Amino acid sequence: MTSAPAYGLADWGTSRFRLWLVDGTGNIIAEKRSDDGLDASRERGFGTTLEAHLAELGAPEQLPVIVCGMAGSRQGWVEANYVAVPADLNAILSGAVKITGIDRDVRIIPGLSQSGRFPNVMRGEETQLLGAMLARNITDGVVAMPGTHSKWVELQSGRAKTFSTYLTGELYALLASQSILRHSVQGAVSSASADHPQFTAAVELMLSGEAMLGELFPIRAAMLLENLSPEGAASRLSGLLIGAEIAGARSKHQGRVALVASGSMATLYGKAISLAGIEFGAVDADEAVRKGLFVAASAIWPR
Amino acid sequence: MTSAPAYGLADWGTSRFRLWLVDGTGNIIAEKRSDDGLDASRERGFGTTLEAHLAELGAPEQLPVIVCGMAGSRQGWVEANYVAVPADLNAILSGAVKITGIDRDVRIIPGLSQSGRFPNVMRGEETQLLGAMLARNITDGVVAMPGTHSKWVELQSGRAKTFSTYLTGELYALLASQSILRHSVQGAVSSASADHPQFTAAVELMLSGEAMLGELFPIRAAMLLENLSPEGAASRLSGLLIGAEIAGARSKHQGRVALVASGSMATLYGKAISLAGIEFGAVDADEAVRKGLFVAASAIWPR
Repeated sequence: MTSAPAYGLADWGTSRFRLWLVDGTGNIIAEKRSDDGLDASRERGFGTTLEAHLAELGAPEQLPVIVCGMAGSRQGWVEANYVAVPADLNAILSGAVKITGIDRDVRIIPGLSQSGRFPNVMRGEETQLLGAMLARNITDGVVAMPGTHSKWVELQSGRAKTFSTYLTGELYALLASQSILRHSVQGAVSSASADHPQFTAAVELMLSGEAMLGELFPIRAAMLLENLSPEGAASRLSGLLIGAEIAGARSKHQGRVALVASGSMATLYGKAISLAGIEFGAVDADEAVRKGLFVAASAIWPR
Repeated sequence: MTSAPAYGLADWGTSRFRLWLVDGTGNIIAEKRSDDGLDASRERGFGTTLEAHLAELGAPEQLPVIVCGMAGSRQGWVEANYVAVPADLNAILSGAVKITGIDRDVRIIPGLSQSGRFPNVMRGEETQLLGAMLARNITDGVVAMPGTHSKWVELQSGRAKTFSTYLTGELYALLASQSILRHSVQGAVSSASADHPQFTAAVELMLSGEAMLGELFPIRAAMLLENLSPEGAASRLSGLLIGAEIAGARSKHQGRVALVASGSMATLYGKAISLAGIEFGAVDADEAVRKGLFVAASAIWPR
């Protein structure tokens, strides 16, 4: 017998939408993924989009739904203001914004912001962070959340102290598919491998302090002069960017790292962090965001 | 009275074509610029394109023409092999390739290559380099040629010893117009200013050793949190990239710098190089490539 759903959990980003229905203990009853990100949903209406996905999963009419991600940005459904660091992560729960003018109880989780010399913001990762901390009982050290805009957060006594963002994933996509390097990477954009010697060499070069900007064009030169393969080019580019990210992050944030990632990202970053000699533990990214959403829902709508 | 043209000089790149007719002393008799770069010329035919531009300038049928740039690449008219560094610049003159199967005497100048741990290539800049060296009697030190793919060449006793390439211009264009930062730069892609405090601050941050990859997203955050203007965002992005280039280049190449640049590039790089405390002299980029082409033509077809 399937238990009744207690909450809807939605991770709503710029290009992706994910929805889970969970019971009162957080077990998944139904789930779906779609490309109904912000851009796709704006025209159709955010409420209409969400209701369509909920109906597909057979969600009850009165099921409360918690949302994290860019849906809470100025370009999203309703703007949920940022919570400034240093911040207790519980502040993002109490700061959730209720959507007005609809029948269902839907709340959007706010992001985190950092002012001063190193301005920064996040939306969506704060929920993943909360989930990772609770799933692994982490209160201190560093949480790394790689992706399009990788986030590294430094924790102290259960509070988010500072954080930084690396444009690693976005830069990889732009360079591999639109720069001069596209001729070298060719169709192998997704073929970067942690086991390729080019990946290791590139990470180590970046960790040695070499400037990343001067190592990009040589990928093209290595193809012309040394027949570097597309897989080698993709692995090298990935290693340069991930290596530069880790070199930058370790100069800002010290401590044991919790790596929140899934699939090939987990493998690539795990290898690179090991090469840097940094102690780390792994947390699955999907599990972390779902856990964070569930904790938020449980706090807002206790049963 | 206008003297008769002695040579045609062509700088033929991926997206640009420039042609000068000069007399026996290098004085310009006629010139033109067009968008007939490699991609535009391939279909129509390189010979046909060149002849059309020569005819427009009224060039005599037998006028010899020297060409530099990507027209000598594998994707160009005829491949002119690279000359390996360390190299005497005269080697690029003797290595010029004669186009066969046409009536006119047309030669293409080869590029420079660097093998080993830091593979690199250039095409077109070798001619600018030769021109700059001869125009300013430079035999030692460093020649910086900023652009889409900025080149820094280290000279020793009149020979090109090593060089490096920075993807600065290409990365600026991609980030300013296609990344998340496009929302911050908006229409101000060409508004980066050496006088903007954001430019200076960003260059200084990069010269202090901060990792560039971690400073890109904060431009977006500064717009959201501090209303950073589009001009401020463009100036900051430009300062980060140019600053990272100079920080990287000065760790590889030491010595007085000859900055080969024109217009706003000359201003931005001049300011950034000054902030790095590096002594430099300026050479106009157009003058340098024309001078290099003229020297090559005079050597190949002495009068």
